[in-house]
Amino acid sequence: MTLIAKLSKRYASKQMNGKKLPQNKVDNILEAIRLAPTSMGLQPFKILVVESQEIKNKIFETAAPGQPQIPNASQVLIFACYRKVTDEILDTYFDLINKTRPMLAKEKVIAYRNMMNGLLNKTADENFQWAARQAYIALGFGLTAAAEQEVDSVPIEGYNPEALDKLLNLHERNLGSVCMFAIGFRNEETDYNARLPKVRKSTLDLFEFL
Amino acid sequence: MTLIAKLSKRYASKQMNGKKLPQNKVDNILEAIRLAPTSMGLQPFKILVVESQEIKNKIFETAAPGQPQIPNASQVLIFACYRKVTDEILDTYFDLINKTRPMLAKEKVIAYRNMMNGLLNKTADENFQWAARQAYIALGFGLTAAAEQEVDSVPIEGYNPEALDKLLNLHERNLGSVCMFAIGFRNEETDYNARLPKVRKSTLDLFEFL
Repeated sequence: MTLIAKLSKRYASKQMNGKKLPQNKVDNILEAIRLAPTSMGLQPFKILVVESQEIKNKIFETAAPGQPQIPNASQVLIFACYRKVTDEILDTYFDLINKTRPMLAKEKVIAYRNMMNGLLNKTADENFQWAARQAYIALGFGLTAAAEQEVDSVPIEGYNPEALDKLLNLHERNLGSVCMFAIGFRNEETDYNARLPKVRKSTLDLFEFL
Repeated sequence: MTLIAKLSKRYASKQMNGKKLPQNKVDNILEAIRLAPTSMGLQPFKILVVESQEIKNKIFETAAPGQPQIPNASQVLIFACYRKVTDEILDTYFDLINKTRPMLAKEKVIAYRNMMNGLLNKTADENFQWAARQAYIALGFGLTAAAEQEVDSVPIEGYNPEALDKLLNLHERNLGSVCMFAIGFRNEETDYNARLPKVRKSTLDLFEFL
């Protein structure tokens, strides 16, 4: 089956069956997320992979009571962005660049860091919105990889971020959640979304050719 | 080659060679973007697919002089989000839902629209940021599909959105650009990025397992 055929078949699973995914499928989804490109390469986020039944239950009860797929997902991923890009974060990033790309001229790397400092010289909210967009590219990679692996999944925005961030002590760690992503196996009996035709704009409505 | 192997090989192409991509590859990338899921299914954006050499040149000159790949890309996609979700946009969306899912009870569809109206009852900026995140999911789908088709590509945030929006009269159409996405063939001689090792956080740095 082509990737497009698999993307046509995927849908937002609203009820899962509690079974664990094979580890190699989980690994492939995480690896796609890790490989996603981000602005200036910074990957300004951490991703919490929740496998503990107790924590999944708590997330459902305290932060996302409208999302019954959470307790029965195999994994729930939480995309949590940096609330502030600190000097320490940039130090770690530039250590990684220097280690991975030793062939780059030092002046070039310093100029790049200066450029980044300039671009990040915005309000805290503007930087957080920028970071959130980068996380959503990675979410797109996770969604595509899940479809490619024929794993059921659903992106979740409908939750209370303050409650989730408090539950997981994210703010104390300079993080704020921007979305969740549940992966697992659909519940064939109760997942009403599985049988509904996909609603998408037509090619002519969505695209304009210039 | 697996999808993961293809995602490992992709990179941000900084110099393209001006050749046109085969139409079936372009079609597959656009179809992946069209199939991307978005919050509440709304797809709150339009995507301009720029093929005209004149317009690519103008974009480069007036809005993105730091992005030399633009004039030599095969296509430059512009993701442009709704600045306001109007009643007319919702009418069109619910017409599409009713046409695609005639089996849904009318009361359910009305309740869904009421819920959407509630969720969209935020400031213009909050709604635009929300729409931008949805566009970035679609960008993630485009990036993955390009890699899968072994097409070179690059997401572009480093441009002047006011200048681009003015050039294309986007504001008059209730749209604002949030990013560009160039696809094409790398210039094997001048694309310095093609030969650099990929910089990514390690699995242990990026993910935390709970």
